Amino acid sequence: MTVRIALDAMGGDHAPLQVVLGAIDAAARGVDVVLVGAASELQPLLEEHDSDLPIVDAPDRIEMGEDPASAIRTKKNASVTVAARMVAAGDAAGMVSAGSTGATLAAAAIVIGRIPGISRPAIAAIIPAGEPSVVLDVGANLEVRPAHLVEFAVMGSALAQVYLDREEPTVGLINIGEEAGKGRELEKEALALLAAGSLHFVGNVEGRDLGLGTADVMVTDGFTGNVLLKTAEATARAVAGMVIGEVADAGERDPVVVEAAGRLMPHLMAVRTRLDPEVFGGAHLIGARGTVVIAHGSSSRFAIANAVQLAADGAAEGLVDRIEAGIDV
Amino acid sequence: MTVRIALDAMGGDHAPLQVVLGAIDAAARGVDVVLVGAASELQPLLEEHDSDLPIVDAPDRIEMGEDPASAIRTKKNASVTVAARMVAAGDAAGMVSAGSTGATLAAAAIVIGRIPGISRPAIAAIIPAGEPSVVLDVGANLEVRPAHLVEFAVMGSALAQVYLDREEPTVGLINIGEEAGKGRELEKEALALLAAGSLHFVGNVEGRDLGLGTADVMVTDGFTGNVLLKTAEATARAVAGMVIGEVADAGERDPVVVEAAGRLMPHLMAVRTRLDPEVFGGAHLIGARGTVVIAHGSSSRFAIANAVQLAADGAAEGLVDRIEAGIDV
Repeated sequence: MTVRIALDAMGGDHAPLQVVLGAIDAAARGVDVVLVGAASELQPLLEEHDSDLPIVDAPDRIEMGEDPASAIRTKKNASVTVAARMVAAGDAAGMVSAGSTGATLAAAAIVIGRIPGISRPAIAAIIPAGEPSVVLDVGANLEVRPAHLVEFAVMGSALAQVYLDREEPTVGLINIGEEAGKGRELEKEALALLAAGSLHFVGNVEGRDLGLGTADVMVTDGFTGNVLLKTAEATARAVAGMVIGEVADAGERDPVVVEAAGRLMPHLMAVRTRLDPEVFGGAHLIGARGTVVIAHGSSSRFAIANAVQLAADGAAEGLVDRIEAGIDV
Repeated sequence: MTVRIALDAMGGDHAPLQVVLGAIDAAARGVDVVLVGAASELQPLLEEHDSDLPIVDAPDRIEMGEDPASAIRTKKNASVTVAARMVAAGDAAGMVSAGSTGATLAAAAIVIGRIPGISRPAIAAIIPAGEPSVVLDVGANLEVRPAHLVEFAVMGSALAQVYLDREEPTVGLINIGEEAGKGRELEKEALALLAAGSLHFVGNVEGRDLGLGTADVMVTDGFTGNVLLKTAEATARAVAGMVIGEVADAGERDPVVVEAAGRLMPHLMAVRTRLDPEVFGGAHLIGARGTVVIAHGSSSRFAIANAVQLAADGAAEGLVDRIEAGIDV
C-alpha cells in the first residue's frame, strides 16, 4: 500500500480553488496526493497553475444540510464517498476532507469501516497551547460508556506517538477533580478500567492541566471534549485580542509604545502561529481503517496542505497498525 | 435586614491571616463584614492590625477531607456552619467562604435552604475573557434534567443583571453547534423549554462564543461547565505564558526587545489583571436564600476583599429577590 492521500476537492467553504492550491503545496512537499472531485472543475484549475496532479472524477457533492448517512448511501459519486472508497480499496492510505464533518464520519463508518476492536471511532484534536496534548473525543460520540473511553485512550496514545513524538504517551481522564471518586458514574467506572489497563494512565486530569504536560492524551465524551476544544480556541483568541487591544490603546497615548509594539510583533505573531488551528490543519477521525483528517470548513490553501501532510505522516508512521496493536493489549 | 456579610475566617489555605486582612480591606471599602471563627485566634490578629471588626465565635472548623454533609450536621460550631446560620436567621444577608466547596454547598443546602422554586442550587462563574459572561453550573450538579437548566438560566440572568449591568441579559444553551437538533437529549429538551420561556433566550451557543458577547448567560450541566471553566483558565494562563516566553527568548538575542518589553509590561499586566480569577474573587453559589460566594482556596487578602465585596453587592442589589421574581414568570 502506498501512502497516497485522497483529497476531497469539493469539500469546504473555499473549495475547489483553495483545496487544489493546498494539494499543489502538499505535493511540492513530497506528498503523494490525488484530487477527488468534479474533473470538469478541477482540470482547468490545475492547468491554470501548471500542475499535473492526478484527478479521480467524482462529480457529485454532499451539501451541508443533507442527512449524512443517507447521502453517503445514495450519492455513490460524491467526492467524499469516492475518496472513502479509495481508502477502503487500498488505493489510498488516507483521506482528507474540509466538507461536512457528518458526511466524513458517515463515509468512514459506512465505506471504510472500523479497525477491529474499535467500536466507536472518535474525533481527536491536538491542542497546541503550552505543552500540546491530544484530546478526544471532541464530537463524534456525545454519550459514551466507560469501555469507549478506554478505546479512546488507545487511539489517542497512537496519535501522540505519531504526532507528539512520545514513545510512551501518558493518558489522563478528564474529570472535575484529581481525586479518585470524583465525577459521574462514567468517570468512576472508566478510572477503574484505565487503571487496570496497560497504558501509561496518570489518573484524573482537569481542564486546568491543558498545556502543562500533565498528560499527553486526555480522554472524555464527545460533548465535553467539543466544549473543551472550542473553549480553548475562544479563550486563546480572546486573550490574544485583549493583548493587542491593550497595546493599541496604549499606543494612542504613547508613541514609544507603538515602536515597542512593532518590535515585538514578530514574536507575538509567532505565538499566534503556534496557536493557529490551521497549522495543525485539522482533527483526526480516528478508529477507521485509514488515516482520516477532517479539515476546518474554512480551510485555506495553507490549512489544506497541512491537513494532507498530517494524513500522509499518519499513514507513513502506521497509525492504524499502532491502534490495532494497542487495542489487543 | 442589613447587608452584613458573614465571612468564614477559618476557611482557605491562608486562613485566618489573609482572611482577616481581606476583611479589614473590605470594611475599609464600606462593607459591613463580620468575622466568623475561633475568637481566640482572630482577636490577636485584629489587635495586631488595629481593627475592631466584630467577631462571632465559632471555634470548630471543617477540614478538606471530611464528608461535607455529615460534618455540617455534627459540627454545630464550625465557622462555615455558624456563618450559614447567621444567613438563615437574617443576621447576615450573605456569606463568603474560601474553605471546602463541598462544605459550603452542604451548609447552604442544609442550613440556609433554597429559594422557593429552585430545586438545584448551582455554582456560577463570571468568565472575564473578552466580553464577560456568567457560566453555570460549573460544578454543583454533575448531571441535570432539562428543567434544571431553565432554573440555571433564571439564576444566571439575575447574576448578569447585578454583576454585568445587563438589564435584560441574553441566555444561551451550551451545545456542540448552533443549529436546533444538536446535542444530547438534555440539550434538545432544554432548548424547547428555554425557547418557550420568557427569558431572552438566544438559542444554542458554543465554547467558541465565550468572550464574544453572544450571550450574557451560558447554561450547562455542572460537569461540562466545570471543564469549560478550568479550560478557559488554563488556556488564558498558557497563552499568557507563551507571550512572555516568546518575548523572553527574543530578549536574549536582542536587547532592544528587552527595552520594548519593559515598556509594554504595564499594559500586558493590565490584561493579566482583567483575567485574574482573584479580581472576581470567587464563584457564586446561587439558589440559596442568601448571597453565597465561594472564594478560591488559595485566596489572598485581595481575593477575600473582592469576594466580600461581591457578596455585599449581590445582597444590596437584591440578588435573591430577583431570582425569586424570575422563577415565577
